[in-house]
Amino acid sequence: MSSDLAQLVTGLAQRARAASLALATASTEAKNAALRRLADLIDRSHPALLAANAQDLASPEAAALTAAARDRLTLNAARLLHLAESVREVAALPDPVGDVLEETTRPNGLHIRKLRVPIGVIGIIYEARPNVTIDCAVLCLKSGNACILRGGKECFQTNAALVQLIQQALTGGLPADAVQLVPTTDRAALLTLLKLDTLIHCVIPRGGESLIRFVAENSTIPVIKHYKGVCFVYVDAAADLAMAERLAVNAKASRPSACNAAEQLLVHRAVAAQFLPAVGRALVAQKVQLRCDAASAALLASAQVPHTAATPADYTTEFLDYVLAVRVVDSLDAAIATINRDSSNHSDAIVTADAVAARRFLAEVDSATVYWNASTRFTDGFEFGYGAEIGISTDRLHARGPMGLRELCTHKFVIEGTGQVRG
Amino acid sequence: MSSDLAQLVTGLAQRARAASLALATASTEAKNAALRRLADLIDRSHPALLAANAQDLASPEAAALTAAARDRLTLNAARLLHLAESVREVAALPDPVGDVLEETTRPNGLHIRKLRVPIGVIGIIYEARPNVTIDCAVLCLKSGNACILRGGKECFQTNAALVQLIQQALTGGLPADAVQLVPTTDRAALLTLLKLDTLIHCVIPRGGESLIRFVAENSTIPVIKHYKGVCFVYVDAAADLAMAERLAVNAKASRPSACNAAEQLLVHRAVAAQFLPAVGRALVAQKVQLRCDAASAALLASAQVPHTAATPADYTTEFLDYVLAVRVVDSLDAAIATINRDSSNHSDAIVTADAVAARRFLAEVDSATVYWNASTRFTDGFEFGYGAEIGISTDRLHARGPMGLRELCTHKFVIEGTGQVRG
Repeated sequence: MSSDLAQLVTGLAQRARAASLALATASTEAKNAALRRLADLIDRSHPALLAANAQDLASPEAAALTAAARDRLTLNAARLLHLAESVREVAALPDPVGDVLEETTRPNGLHIRKLRVPIGVIGIIYEARPNVTIDCAVLCLKSGNACILRGGKECFQTNAALVQLIQQALTGGLPADAVQLVPTTDRAALLTLLKLDTLIHCVIPRGGESLIRFVAENSTIPVIKHYKGVCFVYVDAAADLAMAERLAVNAKASRPSACNAAEQLLVHRAVAAQFLPAVGRALVAQKVQLRCDAASAALLASAQVPHTAATPADYTTEFLDYVLAVRVVDSLDAAIATINRDSSNHSDAIVTADAVAARRFLAEVDSATVYWNASTRFTDGFEFGYGAEIGISTDRLHARGPMGLRELCTHKFVIEGTGQVRG
Repeated sequence: MSSDLAQLVTGLAQRARAASLALATASTEAKNAALRRLADLIDRSHPALLAANAQDLASPEAAALTAAARDRLTLNAARLLHLAESVREVAALPDPVGDVLEETTRPNGLHIRKLRVPIGVIGIIYEARPNVTIDCAVLCLKSGNACILRGGKECFQTNAALVQLIQQALTGGLPADAVQLVPTTDRAALLTLLKLDTLIHCVIPRGGESLIRFVAENSTIPVIKHYKGVCFVYVDAAADLAMAERLAVNAKASRPSACNAAEQLLVHRAVAAQFLPAVGRALVAQKVQLRCDAASAALLASAQVPHTAATPADYTTEFLDYVLAVRVVDSLDAAIATINRDSSNHSDAIVTADAVAARRFLAEVDSATVYWNASTRFTDGFEFGYGAEIGISTDRLHARGPMGLRELCTHKFVIEGTGQVRG
């Protein structure tokens, strides 16, 4: 890459780092006022934002997008109103910065407080989705972090217009460099960015698995990953089968494109003959395709429920669609072992009236969120009461599961003494 | 590398992963009993351990070590007694696994608990230090994690003997594969290991900066880094100068090889003429070399305190030795800006009687641990009351500052419902 481009990206990161130091000690009121100004600016700027968006939609890059991706890129008045409203909601949330996480006085009199503080500079790498630009910028601002946004090239004009509004809103002592857009969609610029580990403290890629893997493999900055959800519903021998049917249908069909949607159904052999025809009919009525192992296929066939044979790959696939893989298992042990082998450790559920079986499942299934008698679809920052969500981490370090404002923070130890020295 | 070697390392990681699932739900009593057995086995195995260590010490690899590194590799009866005692101390610590971190019941009746659980499989990459083998294995075991140890080649026989004892101690239902040693010191095996991100969940390198950088740059597994400490002591205009002298001498000279030792002294211009000659004499009496900017050099020269001129590199160097860089600053603002630019964000202290200045310093210095009127040397898991320490993280994600048993854990969300589905 040209050294000009490297200099451009490095300069941007240096400004972000300087801004992060100022933002870290900004008052809650200053941050909230900026967010409310941003919401008002969005409300007043529909024409400019829609014009920028129209420019993006008319570009050759956007022409290559799928219909679904094009829809996600598209802004309209209703979506802009919703965007401004979401900014006001974040302004109304409690500020995570400054919370006392631990406090102790040591025998030598040292007073130690562990305080929640912003991480510093966060890089967000994402696809052509203008709402992600606002969501991420706003959550970073509220949590006192500077951010560097690098969105999809198909959304460049829209993002530039949105970031201009954000920077306009950053008055009242807040540094304008707190939110910056990488001013090029050149991939070499991204590769440079991902090596600036002395200036950027965390990278969050948001998008498909290949984008996340690209970032993880090329970054020397710690990455918080939001990989796929290959989520399981296991219907135990002691399940309330009416409840199991409701949960399975909800987990699969209420929003198949979500990472917390079920992709896999396991049914205990003891209830398979009774349960599978009923749940199969209910799922098919929701347009769900069933991909079955031999045992479940035989039961569905004799009940004349449409299905196909699963391939081995189906058992570990995130379909994100109206498709469900179905297997019969012989025991709770087999269910737990199957899930620990084939799931993505995102969200897995047991349906059972047997508390002993449930407790074993909850303890032994090694996933970020485990459910007893509830739909996997609840894995979500809003459903958890976090008020906001920057994603659902599939990592185990720092954040695991839904990430809200607190997960955009780290901590520092503040120690007050009276002249103590170490012996 | 040969595919045999790749298979060997992958097989080891697969066994570690299987062991981690069993270990995650092991009882506290089973883990503690294994640790106590290990301590007894160490006590009973001095001849075998010392023989293995003698073999390492006689190797050509060990002949190339510095005297200090050779000393760290060397075992003797006193060190083995101490090692066994440290294992018993970890057995006596509270088990971090299962702690309820948050608990809430949502309006829809879902009961959500955030529980502390082991991370899973942890890779430890370290130098030729047999005590690290025991320390890390024991802390991983206590926190329910399987671990894969890859120590320095100069220590291979000693490590093999120690890991054999650990595996002997892992009875009572605990999986022997919970602690494994990479059975080769081939660097290609390490490179393979660092890419096994579906089997290994976290890598902790322990050693010098080049080792840590090598691991961070070659790992696709999240790494928790323990980089250098370029720690500052800032003596404010309002400092109690007798206290400041005690703190500066302790921070620098009580153990210069520690990462929490001070490397940098900043003195406010208002007190420099009075303070520098006194602290200079005290430091020189402790054999500390002073590397000075022009202002501090002039003051020390007129007081006839030996010193040299600092180079720019000295202001960001971790000396780990009886060397201190000294500068005069014009203000609190200048001190904060200097520290935020030149320190490694590890541990930095202000000495002052001015509470307003202190609060600004504690808030605005962006370091993992900040001190008011205390020595930087207290940044340590034991001093913080953690009872154990696997290192001092210089990262911001997951762990920052001293890492104890709790920092070797992640969490899971355990959700209990009564058939809730998402609307």
